Amino acid sequence: MKAEQIRQLDHVFYPSTVAVIGASDDDGFSQALLSTKLSDSVFLVNPRRSELHGRRCYTTILDIEEEIDYVVIAVPALNVPGVLAECIAKGVKTAHVFSAGFSETGLEDRKALEDEVKETARGRIDLIGPNCMGIQCPGSGLAFIPDASSEEGPVGVISQSGTFAEQFLSTGKLRNIRFSKVVSYGNAVDLDCPDFLEYLAHDSRTGVIALYMEGTRNGERLKAAMSEASRLKPVVALKGGITEHGRRAASSHTGSLAGAPEIWSSLFRQTGVVQVESFDELRDAALALSCAPLPEGDGAAIITNSGGFSVLETDLCVKAGLEVPQFTEATKAELSKMIPLAGTSISNPLDAWPIYYNLPGTPGTLADAIGVLAHDANIHSIVLHFDEVSYLRRVLGEAVEGLLRELIKVMVQGCKYARDEVGKTVMVCVALDAYSEDEEDRRYHLMAKKAFEDEGFPVYPALNDAIKAVFNLYRYSIARRTRLV
Amino acid sequence: MKAEQIRQLDHVFYPSTVAVIGASDDDGFSQALLSTKLSDSVFLVNPRRSELHGRRCYTTILDIEEEIDYVVIAVPALNVPGVLAECIAKGVKTAHVFSAGFSETGLEDRKALEDEVKETARGRIDLIGPNCMGIQCPGSGLAFIPDASSEEGPVGVISQSGTFAEQFLSTGKLRNIRFSKVVSYGNAVDLDCPDFLEYLAHDSRTGVIALYMEGTRNGERLKAAMSEASRLKPVVALKGGITEHGRRAASSHTGSLAGAPEIWSSLFRQTGVVQVESFDELRDAALALSCAPLPEGDGAAIITNSGGFSVLETDLCVKAGLEVPQFTEATKAELSKMIPLAGTSISNPLDAWPIYYNLPGTPGTLADAIGVLAHDANIHSIVLHFDEVSYLRRVLGEAVEGLLRELIKVMVQGCKYARDEVGKTVMVCVALDAYSEDEEDRRYHLMAKKAFEDEGFPVYPALNDAIKAVFNLYRYSIARRTRLV
Repeated sequence: MKAEQIRQLDHVFYPSTVAVIGASDDDGFSQALLSTKLSDSVFLVNPRRSELHGRRCYTTILDIEEEIDYVVIAVPALNVPGVLAECIAKGVKTAHVFSAGFSETGLEDRKALEDEVKETARGRIDLIGPNCMGIQCPGSGLAFIPDASSEEGPVGVISQSGTFAEQFLSTGKLRNIRFSKVVSYGNAVDLDCPDFLEYLAHDSRTGVIALYMEGTRNGERLKAAMSEASRLKPVVALKGGITEHGRRAASSHTGSLAGAPEIWSSLFRQTGVVQVESFDELRDAALALSCAPLPEGDGAAIITNSGGFSVLETDLCVKAGLEVPQFTEATKAELSKMIPLAGTSISNPLDAWPIYYNLPGTPGTLADAIGVLAHDANIHSIVLHFDEVSYLRRVLGEAVEGLLRELIKVMVQGCKYARDEVGKTVMVCVALDAYSEDEEDRRYHLMAKKAFEDEGFPVYPALNDAIKAVFNLYRYSIARRTRLV
Repeated sequence: MKAEQIRQLDHVFYPSTVAVIGASDDDGFSQALLSTKLSDSVFLVNPRRSELHGRRCYTTILDIEEEIDYVVIAVPALNVPGVLAECIAKGVKTAHVFSAGFSETGLEDRKALEDEVKETARGRIDLIGPNCMGIQCPGSGLAFIPDASSEEGPVGVISQSGTFAEQFLSTGKLRNIRFSKVVSYGNAVDLDCPDFLEYLAHDSRTGVIALYMEGTRNGERLKAAMSEASRLKPVVALKGGITEHGRRAASSHTGSLAGAPEIWSSLFRQTGVVQVESFDELRDAALALSCAPLPEGDGAAIITNSGGFSVLETDLCVKAGLEVPQFTEATKAELSKMIPLAGTSISNPLDAWPIYYNLPGTPGTLADAIGVLAHDANIHSIVLHFDEVSYLRRVLGEAVEGLLRELIKVMVQGCKYARDEVGKTVMVCVALDAYSEDEEDRRYHLMAKKAFEDEGFPVYPALNDAIKAVFNLYRYSIARRTRLV
């Protein structure tokens, strides 16, 4: 490895031609690549087939006349060195080895096989993997998931786990996240996390980097790459294997030496990388960092229709490290004019259920209340909780759809004012249970979600998720300020 | 209050006649009560209406000829003392005051109003509230949510927050939770948490008690009630307002004095009550405690199709206080016979994706693997992660539905063997995102969920939730053993 030097990886992410070695009727790589704009430049290799997916299938890569920039190798582990040698003979620039069955098995002969792959590749071909999903790059058409969005966006993902790379793409689509590049790098015998991190740090199409890793072979290089990347853009990271048992699991997953948790926490802190604790938190933070302005302080306002949630979410904010400050007297006076006394709380959290139903033209709408909060000097971010669909359906019956559209417009308008005119961070929770079975109920919720997303707001199904996202935005703003000093 | 004496509340939960004072076209109480078996014994009162919901509407409760056992009072706060006096004159046994606008406002005159309500009721009528949803009791028909399940079940809920009582009922329906009684008790000027706790402790229809509270006026009595209840059945509790800001929010929600968090934690520990940290965890623990056998130790096995989740969920288990022990050599040898090497991990967590697709008749099915794990002496509970639907749909196309049914049968069979024949705790995660929009995908997931639920397994949409539920079962088993010594 070229230790201190940034590897130029444009050819890795933007190949002109791709071959899948070990293509079959149901392999996801062929299906994915054939569904993107690269489709016409995809070649399939399988010695047992002459045709696949309606096109010619080659016996070996050497039989393809065209130059091949990038190969996906999906053959049994023991065949990988031979196939790799053929790719090198063919002049392929990049090989992604999907095949598993190497050092992660814990078996000596499989470690030796991995070393053989590493030695074969060294200096002759750029290698991703083995034991990984490779690269999804909407800008070039490289893909490992067939039905992911082809739209480019600001989020770059580097994941040692193939599942999490896939989960980013599949659930990201549901959460309005668009990606610049998603990398699953597995056992990392050649191209490793720092290489991808350096590349994405300088990639103008990437605005935020989300990182999942289980270990590293070169801590110093990783530290330098993290430090450089987080100086240029937000980097949020999840470290797998922070407990002893978890490290054992990491070792059988990607063959990683995982290291003590304190070392990792301190590494993240020193390099300005925001460390999170679960996959959902990683994805949710990436979404927030990709579209919301950073809060200028730790004061959060919560607007909800529930006293119980007011109490618990305040606890959660404070445990997380945010404040839920009292509103100024001026704010309270303004709010008192529009919110009735009984069953509400003109305080922070604002439990203001009666005005959730006020339409434009009535004395106080939710947009008016949000506008008042936005100007409170103690408040730097606003979390809006929307969980009114079943109530509205019950009291409104068939009129609900039209009124709901109006109410959503009012809420979106208030949030836009707070963000665009006053500069506050605004997050939205459109509360929805994963197992909800009422299709009409789901449709209304998704309608609300889409209305907020269309205006660029991050939307979460649980209030906790929205609050954690605010907190991670705040942590990044602190990390950035500290490093700029 | 009759301090040291258990209040007999059968008449509170099982009235023969109910009146709603302040009934209207869209009040939830009338709608709820008119949809239950109490319907013919429900009387509506509203001086401005002669008819409501197709039946006679009375001017005052005194105009009703029949005896009234229970009233719901939903009138403006200032009218409550007068209405309450009429109820007492009428000989009503129990009054539930829904109306808000009392001590929770923080206003002196409203505190005085609450005191007036308290004095009016004292010794003359049992009073629930004010500022609460009251009681849902499928066994009697008492209800505050119109579309909740009318089926009785083992979970009893006591909640200071109305929203959480509602959320228990609405999301409990989606999670296969059935309730004996759900109580929202609000400002608790008369009937308080200890009264309900003592009653549910001795209620033969209640098998598990879930508690949400923000504070208490009588710590000693609460302690005695918790201690007694948790000696008789599992009690799991969520305390709102454990931070300073949270206590302020609690004060404006239910007028509670919330107390220092350490005092509460120690109270829960001393009384054998399992304390949890979020509403979802409370509900999820109640589900697990209502249907799963207790684990006999801290050793958890995780079966998944993802290496990344293996690592993170192991971290989560260990952070929570569970072990993810290595399997015995005998277990590993058995598993090695059925699970291929590449891309799997024959270790705990068991990352065994290839055998997720094996149908009966093939050498190793998931049922076989679960059977092997169940007999491992290090393993006390098993968490099965199912997240295969999109993969199966991609590789199987139209054949997916039939095959999926078969695979689900295999999984359920394995889980039943582990639980019923070997006595292990088994939890299932059927992974589903709240915002998933693909209706067919959702249908398949819900089909799997239902198959497990029909056999009495707790099912959760996220692996984290299932693990936390195992942990809370384990904590309860420890608390119980400790107290039995």
